[in-house]
Amino acid sequence: MIKQIVSKNNKVELGMLEKSSFNTLLDTRYKNSKKIVIVDENTQEKCWPYLLTTFESLKEAEVIVLPSGEENKVLEVCFQVWEALSNYQIQRSDLIINLGGGVVTDMGGFIASVFKRGLDFINIPTTLLAMVDASVGGKTGVNLGSFKNQLGVFSLPELTVCDPTFLKTLENKEILAGKAEMIKHGLITSKSYVASLETAETDIPHLDLIAEAVQIKAAIVDRDFQEKGERKTLNFGHTIGHGIEGFLMTQEVAVTHGECVAWGMLVESYLSNEIAGLSEKELDKIETLIRKIYPELPIQKSDFDTLIKLMRHDKKNKGKHINFTLLNAIGSSTIDYNVDEDKIMEVLTKVFEA
Amino acid sequence: MIKQIVSKNNKVELGMLEKSSFNTLLDTRYKNSKKIVIVDENTQEKCWPYLLTTFESLKEAEVIVLPSGEENKVLEVCFQVWEALSNYQIQRSDLIINLGGGVVTDMGGFIASVFKRGLDFINIPTTLLAMVDASVGGKTGVNLGSFKNQLGVFSLPELTVCDPTFLKTLENKEILAGKAEMIKHGLITSKSYVASLETAETDIPHLDLIAEAVQIKAAIVDRDFQEKGERKTLNFGHTIGHGIEGFLMTQEVAVTHGECVAWGMLVESYLSNEIAGLSEKELDKIETLIRKIYPELPIQKSDFDTLIKLMRHDKKNKGKHINFTLLNAIGSSTIDYNVDEDKIMEVLTKVFEA
Repeated sequence: MIKQIVSKNNKVELGMLEKSSFNTLLDTRYKNSKKIVIVDENTQEKCWPYLLTTFESLKEAEVIVLPSGEENKVLEVCFQVWEALSNYQIQRSDLIINLGGGVVTDMGGFIASVFKRGLDFINIPTTLLAMVDASVGGKTGVNLGSFKNQLGVFSLPELTVCDPTFLKTLENKEILAGKAEMIKHGLITSKSYVASLETAETDIPHLDLIAEAVQIKAAIVDRDFQEKGERKTLNFGHTIGHGIEGFLMTQEVAVTHGECVAWGMLVESYLSNEIAGLSEKELDKIETLIRKIYPELPIQKSDFDTLIKLMRHDKKNKGKHINFTLLNAIGSSTIDYNVDEDKIMEVLTKVFEA
Repeated sequence: MIKQIVSKNNKVELGMLEKSSFNTLLDTRYKNSKKIVIVDENTQEKCWPYLLTTFESLKEAEVIVLPSGEENKVLEVCFQVWEALSNYQIQRSDLIINLGGGVVTDMGGFIASVFKRGLDFINIPTTLLAMVDASVGGKTGVNLGSFKNQLGVFSLPELTVCDPTFLKTLENKEILAGKAEMIKHGLITSKSYVASLETAETDIPHLDLIAEAVQIKAAIVDRDFQEKGERKTLNFGHTIGHGIEGFLMTQEVAVTHGECVAWGMLVESYLSNEIAGLSEKELDKIETLIRKIYPELPIQKSDFDTLIKLMRHDKKNKGKHINFTLLNAIGSSTIDYNVDEDKIMEVLTKVFEA
């Protein structure tokens, strides 16, 4: 059974790849196109063999292997891929298939969108995080130094297929990372959805819960594709989270994007409590959830200045204050709170020096 | 007096910069934005002082100087600019102003469109070529090795202003380069426009003629922004032209884009005569015009294989043949002629071994 997400901008299907439109597209629209499959070292080993043995038309595909990990989500790697595409004489009518986690779908989407001013691409996210977040919404890009996703374009895949089979290849840590974005989708829009996530934290979520997360995101993106307003609610937890992630990358601490966002959400929930009307009781509930699920991060008071410096670079800022989406309650959020640095210092202390 | 081009996608004005909407935009929409002016070594010297002394609000602008020339239209240079933008803490609400020829507007547009997934930019083309071609239509990009514009995106400037004052700073060679694209606009759509260009070839064309060229291009782009059909007519002369340009770049021969397109148009007119119904008489007319205006290029029979190899990489190709837009008559063109290599060899011989 294939679940289809109803959305204006995002064509997303959930279920077995063989039963999805992916199969049909390969045999029709892209019948005569060359196919390039972009994987990383993990998905080359764990996911690509399934595609290769299942889809006859991928036998001739060229496979490009990206080095794994966020630290390789950089322009230099894109450049090498573009040279390879050029050597393969890839043309505008050919197809790129991104098979991997958020790094592969973000970077692969960017590679496709910029080569010859835009090739079609299909995303097959293999991590929970990529399914519920990275591969929906058309954001593509790479990092610049420690600044996350500073280079990129808005560009939509022709199709995204979330096949839950791939989730079985993941470690617990990666399930938790994805769950952080699911919790976020709930915190900003739906109290009942958060409640449904509070149980069995390391289990693979039921496909219905994944579909609901995708639907929440797709609906927001449909209403505000270019991120002029409402889409910024999806940044809840990310202003602090990106700061943390950039900082820990420079420290060479292995940490997932989801963990950083989880702690970012907690810090921003404290801000929400002080500025945006989030009740003590709901703050407690969020704090309990985050601290129960996510391991503590090696962040100390002496790191706060660096964190704030990194946040200044966030794409959502305008002028001198730092811009946040905050919670008014669980399930309800408001964009564009401008917060000064002292206040941020204060809540960082509450979370990391508690 | 400001001439306004009527167009759905392209907001283009011709006339004095001080009287154009540029002035108003700086004082209103971009009042609180940081301004980044991208120039090259030439326009920094010859054009930037005029802007700096004319517009109060540019006193605080950051100026980024690109190395001049097509050989610097590469990703490495973009990367350095992106790092500079990051250091200046440029935010999504800031403004990039591209002041220069086609290399500056193509590359500056690409830099702006990819940084933080897209900053607003304004093009102020300073060469005739950039006015009539590069800065209208939303194509941005850089070269990859000897392959022209292989990396890029479709992205429209907020405004383009063509101020004829800048044309006085140009050498004859550059006027001729721009005129090649004007001739092309005429050849594909308007016999009378070609006739109006046949006189006084090295003079700066009258502003009305420049405006007409912009109008022709803007109208085509409006009807087919993503280049699925009619827009490919604008590629007349460019399949061969890009091959020539890429080849001469590797030979370190100094040649303008316009000269390569001019000779490309002549070769493709021979093809048009053989395949697409262009009469002998009109072919003669085109040959006379091109040979009168444009100096001969150092291309020999032994280079033809390399040229064809370069053409294979052209973005417009699909499958095994090489794709051309050809003329049915002066003022009338048809896209998507697929031509085999032997035929191309034959017409290359007619033009370069005559």
